[in-house]
Amino acid sequence: MTEAQLKDLLQAYKAGQVDLDTVMGHLKTLKEEDLGFAKVDHHRALRNGFPEVIFGQGKTKEHVAAIASRLAAAGSTVLVTRTTREVYQEVAARLPAAEFNELARTIVVAAGEIRPTGGRVAVLSAGTADLPVAEEAAVTAAVMGNEVERIYDVGVAGIHRLLGRVDLVRRADVVIVVAGMEGALASVVAGLVDRPVIAVPTSIGYGASFGGLAALLTMLNSCAAGIGVVNIDNGFGAAALATAITRLKKV
Amino acid sequence: MTEAQLKDLLQAYKAGQVDLDTVMGHLKTLKEEDLGFAKVDHHRALRNGFPEVIFGQGKTKEHVAAIASRLAAAGSTVLVTRTTREVYQEVAARLPAAEFNELARTIVVAAGEIRPTGGRVAVLSAGTADLPVAEEAAVTAAVMGNEVERIYDVGVAGIHRLLGRVDLVRRADVVIVVAGMEGALASVVAGLVDRPVIAVPTSIGYGASFGGLAALLTMLNSCAAGIGVVNIDNGFGAAALATAITRLKKV
Amino acid sequence: MTEAQLKDLLQAYKAGQVDLDTVMGHLKTLKEEDLGFAKVDHHRALRNGFPEVIFGQGKTKEHVAAIASRLAAAGSTVLVTRTTREVYQEVAARLPAAEFNELARTIVVAAGEIRPTGGRVAVLSAGTADLPVAEEAAVTAAVMGNEVERIYDVGVAGIHRLLGRVDLVRRADVVIVVAGMEGALASVVAGLVDRPVIAVPTSIGYGASFGGLAALLTMLNSCAAGIGVVNIDNGFGAAALATAITRLKKV
Amino acid sequence: MTEAQLKDLLQAYKAGQVDLDTVMGHLKTLKEEDLGFAKVDHHRALRNGFPEVIFGQGKTKEHVAAIASRLAAAGSTVLVTRTTREVYQEVAARLPAAEFNELARTIVVAAGEIRPTGGRVAVLSAGTADLPVAEEAAVTAAVMGNEVERIYDVGVAGIHRLLGRVDLVRRADVVIVVAGMEGALASVVAGLVDRPVIAVPTSIGYGASFGGLAALLTMLNSCAAGIGVVNIDNGFGAAALATAITRLKKV
Amino acid sequence: MTEAQLKDLLQAYKAGQVDLDTVMGHLKTLKEEDLGFAKVDHHRALRNGFPEVIFGQGKTKEHVAAIASRLAAAGSTVLVTRTTREVYQEVAARLPAAEFNELARTIVVAAGEIRPTGGRVAVLSAGTADLPVAEEAAVTAAVMGNEVERIYDVGVAGIHRLLGRVDLVRRADVVIVVAGMEGALASVVAGLVDRPVIAVPTSIGYGASFGGLAALLTMLNSCAAGIGVVNIDNGFGAAALATAITRLKKV
Amino acid sequence: MTEAQLKDLLQAYKAGQVDLDTVMGHLKTLKEEDLGFAKVDHHRALRNGFPEVIFGQGKTKEHVAAIASRLAAAGSTVLVTRTTREVYQEVAARLPAAEFNELARTIVVAAGEIRPTGGRVAVLSAGTADLPVAEEAAVTAAVMGNEVERIYDVGVAGIHRLLGRVDLVRRADVVIVVAGMEGALASVVAGLVDRPVIAVPTSIGYGASFGGLAALLTMLNSCAAGIGVVNIDNGFGAAALATAITRLKKV
Amino acid sequence: MTEAQLKDLLQAYKAGQVDLDTVMGHLKTLKEEDLGFAKVDHHRALRNGFPEVIFGQGKTKEHVAAIASRLAAAGSTVLVTRTTREVYQEVAARLPAAEFNELARTIVVAAGEIRPTGGRVAVLSAGTADLPVAEEAAVTAAVMGNEVERIYDVGVAGIHRLLGRVDLVRRADVVIVVAGMEGALASVVAGLVDRPVIAVPTSIGYGASFGGLAALLTMLNSCAAGIGVVNIDNGFGAAALATAITRLKKV
Amino acid sequence: MTEAQLKDLLQAYKAGQVDLDTVMGHLKTLKEEDLGFAKVDHHRALRNGFPEVIFGQGKTKEHVAAIASRLAAAGSTVLVTRTTREVYQEVAARLPAAEFNELARTIVVAAGEIRPTGGRVAVLSAGTADLPVAEEAAVTAAVMGNEVERIYDVGVAGIHRLLGRVDLVRRADVVIVVAGMEGALASVVAGLVDRPVIAVPTSIGYGASFGGLAALLTMLNSCAAGIGVVNIDNGFGAAALATAITRLKKV
Repeated sequence: MTEAQLKDLLQAYKAGQVDLDTVMGHLKTLKEEDLGFAKVDHHRALRNGFPEVIFGQGKTKEHVAAIASRLAAAGSTVLVTRTTREVYQEVAARLPAAEFNELARTIVVAAGEIRPTGGRVAVLSAGTADLPVAEEAAVTAAVMGNEVERIYDVGVAGIHRLLGRVDLVRRADVVIVVAGMEGALASVVAGLVDRPVIAVPTSIGYGASFGGLAALLTMLNSCAAGIGVVNIDNGFGAAALATAITRLKKV
Repeated sequence: MTEAQLKDLLQAYKAGQVDLDTVMGHLKTLKEEDLGFAKVDHHRALRNGFPEVIFGQGKTKEHVAAIASRLAAAGSTVLVTRTTREVYQEVAARLPAAEFNELARTIVVAAGEIRPTGGRVAVLSAGTADLPVAEEAAVTAAVMGNEVERIYDVGVAGIHRLLGRVDLVRRADVVIVVAGMEGALASVVAGLVDRPVIAVPTSIGYGASFGGLAALLTMLNSCAAGIGVVNIDNGFGAAALATAITRLKKV
Repeated sequence: MTEAQLKDLLQAYKAGQVDLDTVMGHLKTLKEEDLGFAKVDHHRALRNGFPEVIFGQGKTKEHVAAIASRLAAAGSTVLVTRTTREVYQEVAARLPAAEFNELARTIVVAAGEIRPTGGRVAVLSAGTADLPVAEEAAVTAAVMGNEVERIYDVGVAGIHRLLGRVDLVRRADVVIVVAGMEGALASVVAGLVDRPVIAVPTSIGYGASFGGLAALLTMLNSCAAGIGVVNIDNGFGAAALATAITRLKKV
Repeated sequence: MTEAQLKDLLQAYKAGQVDLDTVMGHLKTLKEEDLGFAKVDHHRALRNGFPEVIFGQGKTKEHVAAIASRLAAAGSTVLVTRTTREVYQEVAARLPAAEFNELARTIVVAAGEIRPTGGRVAVLSAGTADLPVAEEAAVTAAVMGNEVERIYDVGVAGIHRLLGRVDLVRRADVVIVVAGMEGALASVVAGLVDRPVIAVPTSIGYGASFGGLAALLTMLNSCAAGIGVVNIDNGFGAAALATAITRLKKV
Repeated sequence: MTEAQLKDLLQAYKAGQVDLDTVMGHLKTLKEEDLGFAKVDHHRALRNGFPEVIFGQGKTKEHVAAIASRLAAAGSTVLVTRTTREVYQEVAARLPAAEFNELARTIVVAAGEIRPTGGRVAVLSAGTADLPVAEEAAVTAAVMGNEVERIYDVGVAGIHRLLGRVDLVRRADVVIVVAGMEGALASVVAGLVDRPVIAVPTSIGYGASFGGLAALLTMLNSCAAGIGVVNIDNGFGAAALATAITRLKKV
Repeated sequence: MTEAQLKDLLQAYKAGQVDLDTVMGHLKTLKEEDLGFAKVDHHRALRNGFPEVIFGQGKTKEHVAAIASRLAAAGSTVLVTRTTREVYQEVAARLPAAEFNELARTIVVAAGEIRPTGGRVAVLSAGTADLPVAEEAAVTAAVMGNEVERIYDVGVAGIHRLLGRVDLVRRADVVIVVAGMEGALASVVAGLVDRPVIAVPTSIGYGASFGGLAALLTMLNSCAAGIGVVNIDNGFGAAALATAITRLKKV
Repeated sequence: MTEAQLKDLLQAYKAGQVDLDTVMGHLKTLKEEDLGFAKVDHHRALRNGFPEVIFGQGKTKEHVAAIASRLAAAGSTVLVTRTTREVYQEVAARLPAAEFNELARTIVVAAGEIRPTGGRVAVLSAGTADLPVAEEAAVTAAVMGNEVERIYDVGVAGIHRLLGRVDLVRRADVVIVVAGMEGALASVVAGLVDRPVIAVPTSIGYGASFGGLAALLTMLNSCAAGIGVVNIDNGFGAAALATAITRLKKV
Repeated sequence: MTEAQLKDLLQAYKAGQVDLDTVMGHLKTLKEEDLGFAKVDHHRALRNGFPEVIFGQGKTKEHVAAIASRLAAAGSTVLVTRTTREVYQEVAARLPAAEFNELARTIVVAAGEIRPTGGRVAVLSAGTADLPVAEEAAVTAAVMGNEVERIYDVGVAGIHRLLGRVDLVRRADVVIVVAGMEGALASVVAGLVDRPVIAVPTSIGYGASFGGLAALLTMLNSCAAGIGVVNIDNGFGAAALATAITRLKKV
């Protein structure tokens, strides 16, 4: 039942064409989405200014380009994650404004305006091999309206590198820590700052890293409080959570 | 080198009793904690108004009571987690203001003032067996200055129970979702709200729940964005992260 | 001992050529398959009208085509699962009636009549990446005589999409739920319907999905009753179980 | 908003006291449970004649007895699973009709009428140590209205014991197979019957059984089609699924 | 110290050129292999008539051909396992007697005589996909002097196929059971025969088979006695163990 | 159909009271156990002289004593494994000949004659903590008719202890190796002897031994050929397999 | 063959009573331990001055006391690990010099002289709950002749505590790092010092620590070089390895 | 604050331009790296004479060549691990002194002088397939200034091969043991020598080796004391730890 149909029903009821029980009967069988869906949509509308995101992995280049074109035409800024240069070329052929970040494996099409969150997100990475995931987080956080500070290659085996940047880290509202191998960076950072820390284990490593499991367990077991963990290699998810947090500054 | 000794050195330098190189030499060998520790302490002092926390598991009742007394004497509100009634009786003998929450397994001694964060934290639980962890989160969040809304027994097998409270959930700044067994609640909630969601897997379940592993993996693999996961049964950690987030509202 | 030999033995006994003990001795050494196999065959004969199934993975195209030809010649409808377009071309060269479903990775050769079960099977999928497994289930269920309703892309992170189709789901006799990543859809569905739910975890995901383990554990630990789980990515198995269930309607 | 309030609103609208937009506004904010819950309830009402189930594990005897009394007073037959003789005594003090099954660890209070499903459920167990789980399944299936056939101690290491009862197994509409250790019974049974097979791994075993993991994996990897697996030791869940299936016979 | 040097020493001692303590001193410092190695060699010599085995995986074709040539020249029959047609061609270029078994992935060069063990080894496989491992076992057992009976495609999902061959199985001295997926065949066989059963899990399967782990656990947890398990896909190892057993018949 | 009934049928057929088709029809419906079971029984009868075994774990003392009494009354020697002194006292009250081995946790009632296998079984253990499992194997092997040689405390960390007993080990027909912690003893032994080696991992250890998993994996991955592995702590199973092997000497 | 027998043989040979071949034959059959064992013993003798160690877990108090008495009587200092006060009382009744360390769960009987290694071992622990393992390491290192520096409660969540003691850490020859939960301390320490670091994961933690697995994986995957890892909770093993290292200073 | 700024501040203080509190305030906010970093650098300078190491995996050939050139230009000897011939050719084009070790997968550019440690490192490998890891360890140990003894192919399945080289092993200061499959060699070696043993599990194996997990667990659970374990396949790490140990000889 659409909103229009619902109005018709109520007007027919008022006009005496249907009785109260009939109206009640119809209302009881209203499917949740009839109203709820609209409510959710409206709710989504409130988020205007945020980009639409396409998870690129497993999609053909034609598929990604088609979706991106449709979203951009509707005035949305578009972010494609886990993508390749080949896909980018397909997208750019249709949307010349598309920009490719090879390290982050992202495409951004700045078609709509991004509402600034007013928040600052620091993205830390332990090693250079963690950079693709860190950049995915950084690009996502930026395109979602955050000011982003990249603080890379500050792994715990050379703790002075991190300590030398503590003030920079402390200036952030939210800190994303990206680390593979033993993943110990998150604990050290959370001990140094009072801000929420989002930990992203990466699959970087070999042998007993078991595809990122070691880093994941390290982060979950941190003796420092204030850490939330996302899935292995999920730079996008970390930035999405960070944005959900920084948006609170304007609530 | 204490602060007093440092002052003496500088005064001796000014008085010409030691030369610049000697002072520089001493400064270079300053151990990090001489100044750094103070800096951290100062930093911690800024957090005044937050309670001190004692992890009760594995500590004797005498030990807990002694630490609690010392902290309360210093004017801090004290929170003891993972504790028992027996420990509470020992604490209450010294600190009559102590209050025990049997379900949450916490003791709170309201010795100091708590600085309100101005934030609202919703704590959702999937089943009644998850309540001890949910209550640990709720008590911690409250004692750390948050307004807390408990929304319990809204597991996904009866999705209408959750849907009927969505507006209540949406009023929160941060949502803590506590769920054992299959842990699916976090995904559903994160799909319904735009706020940061902190997911706490619990060890509730049997068989293939493998002590909470099933719920943990579910939460890490959520297809919904905006979820940060903490360790199994770590209600305290979830509330600490939530507080780190809500404090941002006053930054 | 063949049936003919058995008859000969009995006639020789009747004719007094062998005595009772000899007959008893022979009967005691009858191998199970002499009679049992026939019994099983007879039993299988009762299932006439159902297609023969070839598990395509690991078989050469010549091998699949040869088996398919033989089965089709015998009047059976043939279903090949986990196959490729290349194999299809080999099969189609011999059996022009062969149809290929690229998404489901199936070939169907409608050589015999399919006995309708009279049952309706709904196949739900959480995400678009789960479609190959969902389609394998849907194609299998259809070729086995069920009426199939596809309800795709109703993952729990957008719960309104599922809620908007609940009536459609409830019209089914059996519900197959296909989901990767966190696999939470099965629990929600089982909480909404009274019908048997067959849950198929998929290997879709990355990081801590561990090849479908996360979704598998989620489904096994469901707090909703009425769920049976099959192996990761086993769309065929889910449909076979569904058919074993819908056939009961005519028992 | 209650149903009464909703009626009032509609009558006020008809009386011209409130306008259409106001009514529409109220309807859009209707919380799902206001109507939806009733709908679910109504849906549940359709199931009248089925017992209410209390998961006994982790609940105090007073708690179980209180819930059981309330349900029985409402005319429901009550089933308590994973319970003890001590709890039974508490329940029996209030509900003399309560019956305790020590092996199955269940209490049944026959307070209401059970609607027969018309279905037959065979419960097979591999070893004597699997009996508690098998009995939980059998008692649950019986109290839910099924005719139950117990076929115990037919593990695959003595395959003739199973073969000797094949006809009995084949007479069932649904077959529940309960097996620990290597859990191979489910595959053999599914190869012998055309009916849906529900496999229940048990935690019986030691060493490399890893608490039932071995049996669980065996059942999930079965080369026989038509098997749905439930959680380790989940006899209740198997029977609930079986009942969802046998009920289809009357659909 | 070589055997010649040892003789010299002893002769010098006899000739009075060195005293007893010197001889004792030398003997005490004798490295184990000086004599021990010879002893082991001698021991190995007792095994004359058995082939030398080359584990082909990870070795270049030139490497395999070189080793095979050297062994064949020394009069040994040579067995190469886990090899390819390409390697075979290299070997055959030097040793025309070489025979390749594509399914078993073995090369056999019958350069020496094989001493018969007098034992009969039955090799059973559950499915056709298990054949490469089963054939590796069968070829190895044959080349090591056993009479081999292949009984293939007797998986438990069609138990009558196995039952129809029980007498054939029972005629063997040792039974090798090769099975992937759920690996249940070993338990059933061990329940039917009194002979030693060697179980070989294979990596055949998908999803929750976890590369053969499911079959491995099944076999280790068998409720039937008399089963020894070897590594996943280790057909060679099973045959080597079988041969160690059948050789006992001549002890 | 009993044997008597079968005879009646055949005689009626001979007498012309029933025709051939009727007899054939009856024979086709013969349940497997009617003849098959007898065949199996007969087969078991051939094993006369071997003891009956009661798996004591999880059985009450009354239960064990009752079974033991019945078996002993039938003239069987009885072996109870995984039992306790308390159970022994119950058994001994009825069967004064019962003997308890505290270390092996076994009870033996020598009620019947044991047929010697003529085989020698060596039982090696790595450490003193492995003795209960080693003794379970030794007692079982002895009561099943083998000559048993115990060679204990020969773990690889002191390799000379093993090397000093190599000749003793080599005199055995079958070697059982019992080892926990890293379980390396099996590989070393299999490299020193040509006999079949049965490896029994034990749950002895802590930390990363994961309840015997480490030793189990070690044994399965042995680079030495001729090793069959049984479940963790399964001393009984090792001895049963050893006996299946030594019995071949008389085949 | 004993040394005396060997001498007799050689003298008989010299006397012409046996020929060279006979002597060679005897020498070839010399069992390894005849000479090798002595060699090992001699080797062990070189270690005089080090204590004998009794692994207390799983041994009765009488057993421990008996062994300790025998060793002390032979002039050895004795160390008992993983023991209890109850065992201590039994030991002290016989050996009044025995000292019990409740935290370390060790007994030391200073019966012999300990040879100093001349090395300094620092033992660091992350949290107070790790102290039992850290103390086991410290007591063992001390009793084995090392100078021990305890640096406790320097977990990475408060990195300044560690940094304030870096100079102390750097003065050690070997650093033992004891840490549970996420185990990150080892990486940070190894990045700060050039000395060998021995990492001891502990089973301290809950949830996803999986009994120390998380800390173990962290330490194995360290991005810092120079770390050797021992088993979970193996404080003794760490100290034994440290002593093997510090002894090199006198080589 | 730079060192120059700090001097300025102190001089201004002496000149009375700033007061003591101001100086103290500045000192308290000194960032750790201002002095600490220099200290660490100085510390690193002390290590002059050791090579710089480039982890080659995942780096482009241009990247490796550029880093290597820069380091060599600064007078450092350079070691590249986990590299390929292709990368070598790129490096050699710039640095003709570069040497490639195909087996070890290393490049060494002898640009600077290596300070000998005076230590001897024995590298043992169990099988030929372990050689790449063993060679990585050997090359690393040599380039770091150790005398290296390679003792290869001494796996425990042929224990005499190891025993024949025990004296050679015992001459080393540190023993590196490289072993895949069951990894038992480390335990045997540690039982034979008093030196520190560094165990390197390799990923060599198949089936239940689970990528080196089996060997890793074996080494961690060793019953022999004095073993430190590094990550799977981490030959470099073992050599780095060995060097940290041998350097102590000159401390």
